Amino acid sequence: MSTPTFTIFGGTGDLTFRKLLPALYNMHTAKDSADDRQIIIIGRRDYSTEEYCGKARDWVKKFSRLPYTDEDFEKFSAQISYYKMDFIDSNAYSSLNLYYKERDLNDHIFYFAVAPRFFSIIASGLTNVKNACHGKVILEKPFGEDLDSAKVLNIQLEKFFSAKNIFRIDHYLGKEMIRNIQTLRFSNPIFSNLWNSRYIESIQISASEDMGIEGRGGYYDASGALKDMVQNHLFQILSIVAMEWPEKFSADAMHDAQIRVLRALRPVADIRETLVLGQYEGYHQEQLVKPHSSTETYAALRLFVDNERWWGTPFYIRTGKKLDRREIKIAIIFRPSFLEKAAQNILIIKIQPSEGVYLQFNIKKPGDTDEIIQAKMDFCQNDYVNKLNTPEAYERLIKACINDNTSWFSQWDQIELSWNFIDKLHELYIWEKLPIFKYAAGTTGPEQANELLRGFGHEWID
Amino acid sequence: MSTPTFTIFGGTGDLTFRKLLPALYNMHTAKDSADDRQIIIIGRRDYSTEEYCGKARDWVKKFSRLPYTDEDFEKFSAQISYYKMDFIDSNAYSSLNLYYKERDLNDHIFYFAVAPRFFSIIASGLTNVKNACHGKVILEKPFGEDLDSAKVLNIQLEKFFSAKNIFRIDHYLGKEMIRNIQTLRFSNPIFSNLWNSRYIESIQISASEDMGIEGRGGYYDASGALKDMVQNHLFQILSIVAMEWPEKFSADAMHDAQIRVLRALRPVADIRETLVLGQYEGYHQEQLVKPHSSTETYAALRLFVDNERWWGTPFYIRTGKKLDRREIKIAIIFRPSFLEKAAQNILIIKIQPSEGVYLQFNIKKPGDTDEIIQAKMDFCQNDYVNKLNTPEAYERLIKACINDNTSWFSQWDQIELSWNFIDKLHELYIWEKLPIFKYAAGTTGPEQANELLRGFGHEWID
Repeated sequence: MSTPTFTIFGGTGDLTFRKLLPALYNMHTAKDSADDRQIIIIGRRDYSTEEYCGKARDWVKKFSRLPYTDEDFEKFSAQISYYKMDFIDSNAYSSLNLYYKERDLNDHIFYFAVAPRFFSIIASGLTNVKNACHGKVILEKPFGEDLDSAKVLNIQLEKFFSAKNIFRIDHYLGKEMIRNIQTLRFSNPIFSNLWNSRYIESIQISASEDMGIEGRGGYYDASGALKDMVQNHLFQILSIVAMEWPEKFSADAMHDAQIRVLRALRPVADIRETLVLGQYEGYHQEQLVKPHSSTETYAALRLFVDNERWWGTPFYIRTGKKLDRREIKIAIIFRPSFLEKAAQNILIIKIQPSEGVYLQFNIKKPGDTDEIIQAKMDFCQNDYVNKLNTPEAYERLIKACINDNTSWFSQWDQIELSWNFIDKLHELYIWEKLPIFKYAAGTTGPEQANELLRGFGHEWID
Repeated sequence: MSTPTFTIFGGTGDLTFRKLLPALYNMHTAKDSADDRQIIIIGRRDYSTEEYCGKARDWVKKFSRLPYTDEDFEKFSAQISYYKMDFIDSNAYSSLNLYYKERDLNDHIFYFAVAPRFFSIIASGLTNVKNACHGKVILEKPFGEDLDSAKVLNIQLEKFFSAKNIFRIDHYLGKEMIRNIQTLRFSNPIFSNLWNSRYIESIQISASEDMGIEGRGGYYDASGALKDMVQNHLFQILSIVAMEWPEKFSADAMHDAQIRVLRALRPVADIRETLVLGQYEGYHQEQLVKPHSSTETYAALRLFVDNERWWGTPFYIRTGKKLDRREIKIAIIFRPSFLEKAAQNILIIKIQPSEGVYLQFNIKKPGDTDEIIQAKMDFCQNDYVNKLNTPEAYERLIKACINDNTSWFSQWDQIELSWNFIDKLHELYIWEKLPIFKYAAGTTGPEQANELLRGFGHEWID
């Protein structure tokens, strides 16, 4: 089989320069990519390949995890060809077809590094490219804006590509500690034997950002925290944390087990006991945000997975922008000891920025006392392994796509179930006129999110 | 109530100089001991109090955990009186009585810092001292040399002192992490829920010494590893690790729970599947050791606690001299994951020289792989708390005696049950002519101790 050609639509965009080119450079330099790979960069601007590579060089220098050397970059950039084309022009694709034909490039991976509204335009343009339909396609999120638009998009893509060749990126699946959850859960009897509602009081999934929307107001204001973060990333994490043991440890069986979690999500009865929305102060002053926008930049949820394992254990999810920290973590809070003075055992899986596992337990305070104090054990992966062994997310995703490892990507049924839940939640909170609480930048979000948990005797772990 | 007078028999011995005086100095300096306490040092040598204190000063300087200052020492030594007396002379006790009477000292704590063979001599001498029988007595180990001698000794002591006032030291009970076992076990649901044979495959208790018998050949050769270490210290640890939840966390209830473990020890059926004995090479060249001595300097045991909690979980115990390390630890080895590539979860309670908790678990190897590797979390108490807060064992023991905290001492029924078990073991291995295996100094002991475990699919955790 020939080495697939890697074609990037949106080759002059930020994503390509900041992530894809450094990732491809690293893969090439680390010999993780075939020497005869061709990389076709498609953009509207008027570059020669040489000019483009000159520009690419600066970005690679800046963002490559491996040391930049001229020699490595020369070898890498020899694979790149810049192809000028306006991808919304459907007539342009027959020239592209010719371009591939002349070079005998028949095996394809297309990377749609463009805004989602162009996905179907490119897909239908590619009908004019021979063999493109046998190729693979990698898509960035978001996949649709709600259930209906996602369905339409999926139909359009599946009309052209075969379902197994559509690789929908969920970056969180590329994060080391998210891939580690399954190993942590299933290969450690000390954890797996306790992984249910008999022993676990609640599970918290937090994704805090200290940044605001950073000029992405156009996209973000039409989306908000629930669609931007919860529907995809946080539901992914939820389904991995809560899944039953798969029948085997294949990508398919794991995926099925995750799907069963999403199916078991309890339909929302009381929106006020389920959801708290917030918006940071000053959001309206952001570029491209509507003056009276009611888009949420913070969401906290209280969810239940209705199955035997999780009966009675709430899953608390929160995410927000302009908070006091940048951090993604999962906290497993075990049921309290019947010894009153003991604190609850907490297992924290740290996903970002540091990667690791943290365990809080009780010990006797040293000295002549029976007082109980808390001890903390910390396993920090960043300290443990050479950073070189932790490839950046995009390298892993591209390699996973090349190797048909679907475990790194969202599947359609997951997306469908997630959108379905979020859409219903959305309808309900609009109908019930759920308020959007203001919160100051640099805080943990609206106080009402604390009250949500406090009402049930719990609190967020910070 | 007046401050009890602290009388040390054996006041010119090593124990007094190295341990008791520094401990008493620390207690005094830290204001843990009453200002009006009197310390009567009894010895045969011809010292004045001043001379004795001059000698004591050097030892305190050397061994005190708190900084030595002349000022503190002057205040402390003002409490000391040296009293010359031969404690094996029964006539000498009426003078001692007079000495106390003149000073109006009626409330007593006696510390028998002498060889055990003198315990009953002193006890019967004290019948001539008014109020001595209402006092407390602190005894060093060993308490007897076998069940019969221990019984005799106990009868002699209890004839004079009331049972609750006999404080038999087991130094291990003063060790911080041994006192921590109960807190670790009972205040952490993540551990307590797994603390049984369903989840634990085996428990190992190791007490390794790198030293030999260091001139203590006279005592040691008549005793050996089983009597010197297993009967007292290691059975203590075993009973704390294996005990059921006490009805309440009082010293008495804890003690009862420990006793029930010793009662449940399965009688030994096959000595060769239970015990491996060793003797280090060169032991016969040690001072005061009999030329053909068959005393064991190493013992490894495989024991069972026959109750519901521990059915099917072996307790492996080992101790020895001239080994490759100085270390006391408890290893809890959890049953394996059904995932073959996962290593077993291991919880280690580190007692000496470092104090702490160590947990081994499985994670995914970072990078593009599903390989499982082991991660280690470590909580090290020595790093965690100021050393000043960790009083040395003797301070704690003396304070515990003053405060009637019996949880720091061995009780007679414990000693009786332990001797009973060890005596039977002894009879059996003599009868069955169990060999004593030689081992080289600086090793982990005889290879046969490894084979003992290997025969059951286990291995020592090092």
